Amino acid sequence: MIRNLISAAALVVGALLPAHAALAAEDPLPAWNDGANKQAIIDFVTAVTTEGGPDFVAVEDRIATFDNDGTLWVEQPMYVQLFFALAEVKAMAPEHPEWKDTEPFKSVLAGDMSGVMASGKEGLEKIIAVTHAGMTSDQFDQTVSAWIATAKNPKTGRLNTEDIYEPMLEVIDYLKANKFDVYIVSGGGIEFMRPWTLKTYGIPPENVIGSSIKLKYEVTDSGPVLMREPDIDFIDDGPGKPVGIQKFIGKRPIAAFGNSDGDYQMLQWTTTGPGKRLGMIVHHDDAAREFAYDRDSHVGKLDKAMDAAPKEGWHLISMKDDWKTIFPTP
Amino acid sequence: MIRNLISAAALVVGALLPAHAALAAEDPLPAWNDGANKQAIIDFVTAVTTEGGPDFVAVEDRIATFDNDGTLWVEQPMYVQLFFALAEVKAMAPEHPEWKDTEPFKSVLAGDMSGVMASGKEGLEKIIAVTHAGMTSDQFDQTVSAWIATAKNPKTGRLNTEDIYEPMLEVIDYLKANKFDVYIVSGGGIEFMRPWTLKTYGIPPENVIGSSIKLKYEVTDSGPVLMREPDIDFIDDGPGKPVGIQKFIGKRPIAAFGNSDGDYQMLQWTTTGPGKRLGMIVHHDDAAREFAYDRDSHVGKLDKAMDAAPKEGWHLISMKDDWKTIFPTP
Repeated sequence: MIRNLISAAALVVGALLPAHAALAAEDPLPAWNDGANKQAIIDFVTAVTTEGGPDFVAVEDRIATFDNDGTLWVEQPMYVQLFFALAEVKAMAPEHPEWKDTEPFKSVLAGDMSGVMASGKEGLEKIIAVTHAGMTSDQFDQTVSAWIATAKNPKTGRLNTEDIYEPMLEVIDYLKANKFDVYIVSGGGIEFMRPWTLKTYGIPPENVIGSSIKLKYEVTDSGPVLMREPDIDFIDDGPGKPVGIQKFIGKRPIAAFGNSDGDYQMLQWTTTGPGKRLGMIVHHDDAAREFAYDRDSHVGKLDKAMDAAPKEGWHLISMKDDWKTIFPTP
Repeated sequence: MIRNLISAAALVVGALLPAHAALAAEDPLPAWNDGANKQAIIDFVTAVTTEGGPDFVAVEDRIATFDNDGTLWVEQPMYVQLFFALAEVKAMAPEHPEWKDTEPFKSVLAGDMSGVMASGKEGLEKIIAVTHAGMTSDQFDQTVSAWIATAKNPKTGRLNTEDIYEPMLEVIDYLKANKFDVYIVSGGGIEFMRPWTLKTYGIPPENVIGSSIKLKYEVTDSGPVLMREPDIDFIDDGPGKPVGIQKFIGKRPIAAFGNSDGDYQMLQWTTTGPGKRLGMIVHHDDAAREFAYDRDSHVGKLDKAMDAAPKEGWHLISMKDDWKTIFPTP
């Protein structure tokens, strides 16, 4: 009896005390090299979570937003969603013999990317219309889920869902452990991301904000569906990001992470609010381990936001210098 | 030493066992009279939370949606948001001398509701444009917060934020205690509701879905702002409700609560999904304690959805018979 009680008591003490001590000593960001940027993250989180401190932020106001392409996963040599669209055109081609002779489909089927690009915004809209609209949200979810299960980056050879940045996953987990509500705020399609963000980043569908096409509620013989219509509903990029944040969350973030000029306004909106704020930009400067690009890149162009960073107090993260590890061990 | 260990062990046992036992015995819905509807709620929650049971639903898929006007708070004699708009017109009138001679403002200022109604959709849009647009989201939040702090229902005499249904608050709390994610899905304005839903219902801004006007990100001399533009962005009513749910949550609810034909499609979308589902309609049939209205009402018309209820398995809640208490004790 006494032995059981002692065991029970030891369990209480064991469960409470040493775990806390261990947590405090543990490095929350082991994939980051020690330095000013890693320290800035830790200092920020410590400041806003220190009760009674001058920078304390109530749990319900701990909102952090992350861009996706180039901030959480690899966006080179081309946005993953564009690879998806091209793959879908190829998969659908047998039912569309007319595409052999119609641009931009002809170029897609011939693997001629410069031809696809030459078709411009209009061509891209045609590709999006046939691959992203004309099906239900459920069907699109299934198509994306099936594709992403095996889709690989042609340059890195990794699955796209493993082509993700370990240091950023650590930041997400660190923020969540400190009771932050963490959102993705991406120019990418909201329904393209939602099927896999929970498994890949630990971020559930309701915390994903993105661009969207219009949905229409229809009652069919087999029940109600949400049809995806070929009309733009919302572009969640540039000045659209603060708008998307306000629409979906209704609160101003206190921390934001991006990597391109498309994140400029999200960083600005976040860091110009009152109280302690954190703005960070992932700078792709590691050609050896990932890619090196900024001002002149068509994908993930970083120019205006890089110039603004020092003045605005945004931290430029060097993938080369700040990140010990880039990709998670599969 | 042994005494301390025994105390610690007693604490463990004490913390685990009796609390659970007490919870199980407690009535989660004391403002409800015993009956089929109360039982349906309890049976549903028990079924979807019973691990290993045939109807078990994972925590992340426990989504419940509630209409607001007439489902959570009183919508008679007129929608609260319309009272707000009329009060704002009166407050703004000194700066708009021309309104004395211009409809619909002339009728608003004269307190002539039939004149306001005669101005139709166009008149209402003019009222919304001047009272809901042309300011920042922050300014609108402050205006709504100041107004709602003292706004009373002219018929019940209660503050609008106390003119809420105790039995529905119990359902919200009961669902949350069972790890449901609870959302408001209302035809009302999203930014009209967000300032007060947490305090009033325990539902945070990010769990509020509603109708919206367009927002525009602008950088002013005093920093960036989100301007409210006089253009409709989204109408979260009727077939718009499933669309809003998909946009904001990206998951199909398993329980939905409404009170009017505007909730028809939300109830349909929710209850036709696979697995165990719950659809409930608050029927305002208690003229003595609240209001009695349904098929012929201009506000909260309940006609088609009432006819569909038996066939669709939606439970019609009688305020008169099912609710022991209607309003919370202030």
